[in-house]
Amino acid sequence: MDKYKEVIKALTEFRDDRDWKQFHDSKNLALAISIESAELNEIFLWKNGEEAENVKKEKIKEELADILSFSFLLAEKHNLDIFDIVLDKIKINAEKYPVDKAKGTAKKYDEL
Amino acid sequence: MDKYKEVIKALTEFRDDRDWKQFHDSKNLALAISIESAELNEIFLWKNGEEAENVKKEKIKEELADILSFSFLLAEKHNLDIFDIVLDKIKINAEKYPVDKAKGTAKKYDEL
Amino acid sequence: MDKYKEVIKALTEFRDDRDWKQFHDSKNLALAISIESAELNEIFLWKNGEEAENVKKEKIKEELADILSFSFLLAEKHNLDIFDIVLDKIKINAEKYPVDKAKGTAKKYDEL
Amino acid sequence: MDKYKEVIKALTEFRDDRDWKQFHDSKNLALAISIESAELNEIFLWKNGEEAENVKKEKIKEELADILSFSFLLAEKHNLDIFDIVLDKIKINAEKYPVDKAKGTAKKYDEL
Repeated sequence: MDKYKEVIKALTEFRDDRDWKQFHDSKNLALAISIESAELNEIFLWKNGEEAENVKKEKIKEELADILSFSFLLAEKHNLDIFDIVLDKIKINAEKYPVDKAKGTAKKYDEL
Repeated sequence: MDKYKEVIKALTEFRDDRDWKQFHDSKNLALAISIESAELNEIFLWKNGEEAENVKKEKIKEELADILSFSFLLAEKHNLDIFDIVLDKIKINAEKYPVDKAKGTAKKYDEL
Repeated sequence: MDKYKEVIKALTEFRDDRDWKQFHDSKNLALAISIESAELNEIFLWKNGEEAENVKKEKIKEELADILSFSFLLAEKHNLDIFDIVLDKIKINAEKYPVDKAKGTAKKYDEL
Repeated sequence: MDKYKEVIKALTEFRDDRDWKQFHDSKNLALAISIESAELNEIFLWKNGEEAENVKKEKIKEELADILSFSFLLAEKHNLDIFDIVLDKIKINAEKYPVDKAKGTAKKYDEL
């Protein structure tokens, strides 16, 4: 079994052992991702660029794991492959952000 | 090459072709994840449970891809394996949420 | 002194007593608002409509106060009057959401 | 009529003219605040401290107005006075963050 399948299996077993599927509608999963994202951001709050790079990797690891867990569960719910959808999005973004216009600038595509 | 490595390669090449690594400090990547999460949530805003399940899968796919992309880039920056960190977190959560106490309830671990 | 001025005075005194103005740049204040918003949302996570209305008012009160506090501080920083900017935005929204098109629907203005 | 009451009246009239009260349950209002917060944060994304202070005040004004609008509507729904709840929270925070321990540091209260 590949590792992605192994992780999805571990996540859904954890969920089903606790009878939590009833709570995992799409809207609540999306909300959970957002709340976990805020917890990741809280690590960096009030810190300048340098201080932000010096936070403990362990903290990032735990919050990022929560974001990924709920993201994987939402993907699983909708039969989306996490890798395929990222590869598809890169193609879309390549058109929105052509190298010659986007190079070295953080402007949004509608301001390029 | 496995698919995870393939996706990381595609993401970092996209980034480097545009000279965007300079913007991708940890604090901004975390902020980007949070903003993309909000865009995912906006799909479900004002919708009740049933309406929320009827949104177009294509929309979820695109916003989830953005969340995953920035999450993968943050993981790559800190040499974190997206699967290992989720598996590690499941172990931590298994202790916080023992089956006998957590079954069928959405209470937070400190209220169990 | 009106109550808005009184609150701004209390917030800035609290901040200055602790020498925190140095941390309160616009980007971090915005991030703080977002993090506090997530804490407000966490109150409602996994709850359906009815359960969500039965949460303790005290919890909403505390999280909403945090959102408002950082919002007021950001407004104060940029010399924005919290009431004037809301009244101005209502005018903009009245054009985006004309009553005859927007009545009874939660669609976004670009879908009306 | 004081200005706060005037603004609440304008917000609820805007809502009721469009028959939107049906969508404004607490959970969705909280979600709306969070989404608007993300739009405020997007103004500052990828910008360093100095660049972030140079964004157009007009942009901050519009996004902050959205956050305040939904916050005021949530307060109105629960009969909370926006000023009283902030003043109450300042008292709570004064105990969590005593001046002698919190001065000049951005540490969270549980790390002081």
